Amino acid sequence: MASGKILVAQGGGPTAVINQSLVGVALEARRHHKVERVYGARHGVRGILNEDFVDLTQETSHNLELVAATPGSALGSTRDKPDARYCHEIFEVLRRHAIEHFFYIGGNDSSDTVRIVSEEARRAGYPLRCIHIPKTIDNDLVGNDHTPGFPSAARFVAQAFAGVNLDNAALPGVYVGVVMGRHAGFLTAASALGKKFPDDGPHLIYLPERVFDIAQFLADVKATCARHGRCVVAVSEGIHDASGTPMLGLLARELERDAHGNVQLSGTGALADLLCEEIRSKLGIQRVRGDTFGYLQRSFIGCVSDVDQREAREVGEKAVQFAMWGTQDGSVAIRRTGFYSVDYELLPLEAVAGKTRVMEDAFITPQGTDVTDAFRLYLRPLLGSGMPDAFRLRAAPVPRRPA
Amino acid sequence: MASGKILVAQGGGPTAVINQSLVGVALEARRHHKVERVYGARHGVRGILNEDFVDLTQETSHNLELVAATPGSALGSTRDKPDARYCHEIFEVLRRHAIEHFFYIGGNDSSDTVRIVSEEARRAGYPLRCIHIPKTIDNDLVGNDHTPGFPSAARFVAQAFAGVNLDNAALPGVYVGVVMGRHAGFLTAASALGKKFPDDGPHLIYLPERVFDIAQFLADVKATCARHGRCVVAVSEGIHDASGTPMLGLLARELERDAHGNVQLSGTGALADLLCEEIRSKLGIQRVRGDTFGYLQRSFIGCVSDVDQREAREVGEKAVQFAMWGTQDGSVAIRRTGFYSVDYELLPLEAVAGKTRVMEDAFITPQGTDVTDAFRLYLRPLLGSGMPDAFRLRAAPVPRRPA
Repeated sequence: MASGKILVAQGGGPTAVINQSLVGVALEARRHHKVERVYGARHGVRGILNEDFVDLTQETSHNLELVAATPGSALGSTRDKPDARYCHEIFEVLRRHAIEHFFYIGGNDSSDTVRIVSEEARRAGYPLRCIHIPKTIDNDLVGNDHTPGFPSAARFVAQAFAGVNLDNAALPGVYVGVVMGRHAGFLTAASALGKKFPDDGPHLIYLPERVFDIAQFLADVKATCARHGRCVVAVSEGIHDASGTPMLGLLARELERDAHGNVQLSGTGALADLLCEEIRSKLGIQRVRGDTFGYLQRSFIGCVSDVDQREAREVGEKAVQFAMWGTQDGSVAIRRTGFYSVDYELLPLEAVAGKTRVMEDAFITPQGTDVTDAFRLYLRPLLGSGMPDAFRLRAAPVPRRPA
Repeated sequence: MASGKILVAQGGGPTAVINQSLVGVALEARRHHKVERVYGARHGVRGILNEDFVDLTQETSHNLELVAATPGSALGSTRDKPDARYCHEIFEVLRRHAIEHFFYIGGNDSSDTVRIVSEEARRAGYPLRCIHIPKTIDNDLVGNDHTPGFPSAARFVAQAFAGVNLDNAALPGVYVGVVMGRHAGFLTAASALGKKFPDDGPHLIYLPERVFDIAQFLADVKATCARHGRCVVAVSEGIHDASGTPMLGLLARELERDAHGNVQLSGTGALADLLCEEIRSKLGIQRVRGDTFGYLQRSFIGCVSDVDQREAREVGEKAVQFAMWGTQDGSVAIRRTGFYSVDYELLPLEAVAGKTRVMEDAFITPQGTDVTDAFRLYLRPLLGSGMPDAFRLRAAPVPRRPA
């Protein structure tokens, strides 16, 4: 190691297990006698700019374990995207503290942040080892079998649809649930894992990997209602028409964009309401309900995959090991090695940063409204142990009696 | 008992534990040698009209236990409200099957259904023992300390806000979560049980028991942001202005009403979006997010209170015992007898039916935007064991260094 001080921070949306990775870094780093201090920057890269550090070396390992099991980003997060000037201010602060290792836990945008910081550090001649630690409920990082945070969010979505299906079976009608996922449909597709019996919902799944056609959508809903007397639909917030325009964009007047140029799709119920209104008015169905799962799916406390917890911890630990024994900046990635086992590798930052993985064609049925068994095989082990199960009455119908 | 056949059915919105009550009736009735058959009517009273019965005596006790642990209404539900003619058609069907015991598991509207059926049966001279078994996530049945289904939904809401608070702390802004509860704010108030640290959200709670004033709301949000740099708000779907007009009604053009005259408030994200838009435009805050918890809060599989499960089972068992050894129609009610213990009693149907309980004044702070310790003391034991807990870093801040 170059210096005795390391810095860790968290970027982007929190997940159920991102604190596992933070604690993985902190505990693994504290084990090495050359590590003098483990600092955490508050609210991501902005915390470096603001010189807002906490000393994780002064935290008990007991409390770190409790924080690891808590959802959210314990250090705080940011959506800031640094440019060259931002980076130079960062290096100035790091220099004052003699910090020469930077670990950043985040998704797509955060991996790009690490790439920028790494490149600017090299250009500026500042000796900084930069490691990106993966995290995103969207599961859209290339080079990874899957990303920490996704399995727990997927479990929430699967459990939510398993419950919603029971509710909808009791009081039949049409139900539309809108799930997060701007470009990648993995989380929406996870709704299929809530199905048990052949007539269970979700009966229709709409992913951003396919063009959304409102006329076809209405025909699909109508056909499902004719067959099952009800219809449960899972829709990605990122569904779009053939031109790529988000369906939500077609009705939203003012779109809020973050520093990465992303339009706000979550935190509004507009898409669910729009689709429900179409069903009500065009199909004449009265009981139509729409929910937007919103922030619950990434922040709900008490719904987590134990596999996800374990892997999120390990990517943090491995990041420190790659930094200590390796000679490269990079992005830690999860590779699947068996059914079910994983290992970790360090990918070049430019292989991951700013690239978006979407669902493979083999995971989507030809009709585009359901997932394949290949996807079920892919996702099931990630959901972890103790998935709740739904049961139904099989009692014999009572013969009618003559009046 | 009058005859050897009993009939059980479920009405209104499903809950996480309503099947416990169904199974409580079935297993307890099957224990009595005089009970020849236990029938279930599919989709509530409509299933009687349609002579759509299943024979629960032919179901294994093992599968009944599994169904008991499954959310939703296993027999299906309805929102039908019978009139005199509807009742006479019901009696015609019951007569054909020689059914003289009717157990109906449901909330406010269902208790009124049982009262109507009971009165019409007496008027028509049909010998029918009618027992109402309580269930409602709204907790708005009079005469009950609380109602089965509410504790599990309250647990979901508390856990959801505990998670949302962590998410909001990581990426500060304003968050508005809309919770079910047309007239009673119990479920919205349950959000307060997700708080642990003094600065945790929800920072503001708006209940239908108090008049909602949009100007005061904006002032409250502004003051909270000034104090904490962020604001988490819990809002009941039933909030209304001084004239009693629901806030949602002020913007909705077409309102859907069910057979009980209730306006549809759930299954739309409009209220959350309206409030967020107000905050964005009037307070100039950029990061404002709104979620409507919708059907997840009453149907999510895998979030249940063990206390709720146990009590829901017992009200079903007690209903059969009151019918077997008693001589009155009535509504089973939960009475709190200690900290924490309960017992059950049979109330006259007219004491419960069609009446709505709202939150006691002692449960709401004078400002009207928070709950009291009396409410926390009331609710905490109902949430059951194993509530997830949030932890945070207490690490020492690192002193800044001179440039």
